[in-house]
Amino acid sequence: MQRINASIITIGDELLIGQVIDTNSTWMADKLNKAGVWVHRRLAVGDDWDEIWNALDNETALSDIVLITGGLGPTADDITKPLLCKYFDGKMVMHEPTLQHVTHIFEVILKRPMIDRNRNQAEVPDTCTVLKNERGTAPGMLFEKNGKLFISMPGVPHEMKGMTEDFVLPYLQKAKTLPSIIHKTLLTAGVGESFLADLIQPWEEALPENIKLAYLPNYGMVRLRLSAIGFDAAALETAVSNEFEKLQVLVKEHLVTTEDEPMERVVAKLLLQRKETMATAESCTGGYIAHLITTMVGSSEYYNGSVISYSYEAKEDLLGVDHNL
Amino acid sequence: MQRINASIITIGDELLIGQVIDTNSTWMADKLNKAGVWVHRRLAVGDDWDEIWNALDNETALSDIVLITGGLGPTADDITKPLLCKYFDGKMVMHEPTLQHVTHIFEVILKRPMIDRNRNQAEVPDTCTVLKNERGTAPGMLFEKNGKLFISMPGVPHEMKGMTEDFVLPYLQKAKTLPSIIHKTLLTAGVGESFLADLIQPWEEALPENIKLAYLPNYGMVRLRLSAIGFDAAALETAVSNEFEKLQVLVKEHLVTTEDEPMERVVAKLLLQRKETMATAESCTGGYIAHLITTMVGSSEYYNGSVISYSYEAKEDLLGVDHNL
Repeated sequence: MQRINASIITIGDELLIGQVIDTNSTWMADKLNKAGVWVHRRLAVGDDWDEIWNALDNETALSDIVLITGGLGPTADDITKPLLCKYFDGKMVMHEPTLQHVTHIFEVILKRPMIDRNRNQAEVPDTCTVLKNERGTAPGMLFEKNGKLFISMPGVPHEMKGMTEDFVLPYLQKAKTLPSIIHKTLLTAGVGESFLADLIQPWEEALPENIKLAYLPNYGMVRLRLSAIGFDAAALETAVSNEFEKLQVLVKEHLVTTEDEPMERVVAKLLLQRKETMATAESCTGGYIAHLITTMVGSSEYYNGSVISYSYEAKEDLLGVDHNL
Repeated sequence: MQRINASIITIGDELLIGQVIDTNSTWMADKLNKAGVWVHRRLAVGDDWDEIWNALDNETALSDIVLITGGLGPTADDITKPLLCKYFDGKMVMHEPTLQHVTHIFEVILKRPMIDRNRNQAEVPDTCTVLKNERGTAPGMLFEKNGKLFISMPGVPHEMKGMTEDFVLPYLQKAKTLPSIIHKTLLTAGVGESFLADLIQPWEEALPENIKLAYLPNYGMVRLRLSAIGFDAAALETAVSNEFEKLQVLVKEHLVTTEDEPMERVVAKLLLQRKETMATAESCTGGYIAHLITTMVGSSEYYNGSVISYSYEAKEDLLGVDHNL
């Protein structure tokens, strides 16, 4: 199976010192995967010329498509654009449609004076195709070299998202023959992954070679995910659904949901459907269950609250639990 | 300045298809950075032998320390341990203290029968130093090769965190001479980064070479971060504090806070301190401001609620706004 492999490079020291969680590349990976592009490497590097240059060299050697976010702003720490200009042997030129767009943003929307730094955002390497940034001033850039595609986008999440949906995904779907990628995930609770693995071992070993099983354990719950990739979407869907149904039967005593959703959402759905309410009493989980339940929008419809009792006395007084039983 | 450079490799297809946000490596990057280790590359790769092997080759060439999380579970998709065994020319042997630990977990804590898969978790390459996993069954592993350090940890967040704090950080602080790394961040609002950059340009250009400035823009707010690295912690602190104070004076009209905290926390602190309350009226932000405010623990102390009015009629009826004014 010939995959179209992509690398995502996110640029910014804030990603390397733990100041910011990299949700951009998770979002991109999800969208690209759904479109049939296999993101096989996600890399974060700092605002450093040599680090970015080396990352480009490395990822170019390993991938068909390299997506880059960040470092396109108007300040001195933003070096992605001059670097890409040099990397792709170009020279900086003013891009008139971008200049009009930036001017419009400042004069009509922001009603602020436009300074040289803003005007410079409309300059691009003459070796790129410009991608319009509908939601901001830094344009995206597309380069091609030795049959590989390079797409540079701003790091501001809503600008990157707009550009990905408006341009990048449609472009890739046109430029490449992309396979279908299918995932189906179910959630089990109350048994360890070792036990599950033994339970489903004969089925797992008999899985068709193009269907891959993953175990995702966390806090007493295990998600099981089937993934497959192929060009015949209908056949793939049938094959994966078929195995997914067999799996549901095998784990049925431990099955919580056949959607990729957390326990707290399953609880929410059940209670809303039955028009019932709940309360919790927690000891060593110290409110974590209450926290999970209240992360659901609308949880006040069905959730009354919690007693958190660490001590035996609190358990007896508040909950009427007799610990001698 | 001789940095100790680290790469973090996180392993798991779930990171490449957008199913899971990689909070592990953000957490590790934060802790390592505070300890003086410069994480210069964060890489995510899939549960795939060649991908992991290539990642090890690449990162070894570029870093002093390579930290690896994930792929240590007892199921067929977990291939990190056999791969590391081969990569570091070892053979698998039973590690008795780990076997006792795993047995204890099953017999005393879980009260569940231990199966072969669980027993196998106590097997390790004979070329590694075993790191005890106080919170789970998969041990960590430490390897050394050509003066480089390799540390493999489980991907389950609370297991990885325990191992990092109990073992990895103290070990690195003993094994390496680590510099101090200092960051100071302030938040501005209401002006664009271009404007700020012009405002502080003379100061920025005169910054000592070992102090780096970063701009972190998002939704009408810009964080400015000063970072420095060096072996004389006291001198570094003085130098950075000195520049940080100058910066505060320069941006004082746009300054929200001199802590690395979001606007909603500043609002919370102010209102709690003054024993005042607030409400919001939102239009095109569609409840996002209310959402941010209510992400703060205890926001019900000071926040009454919001009116969200899209239409002119709603604005007039609910808020008494005359849009002709």
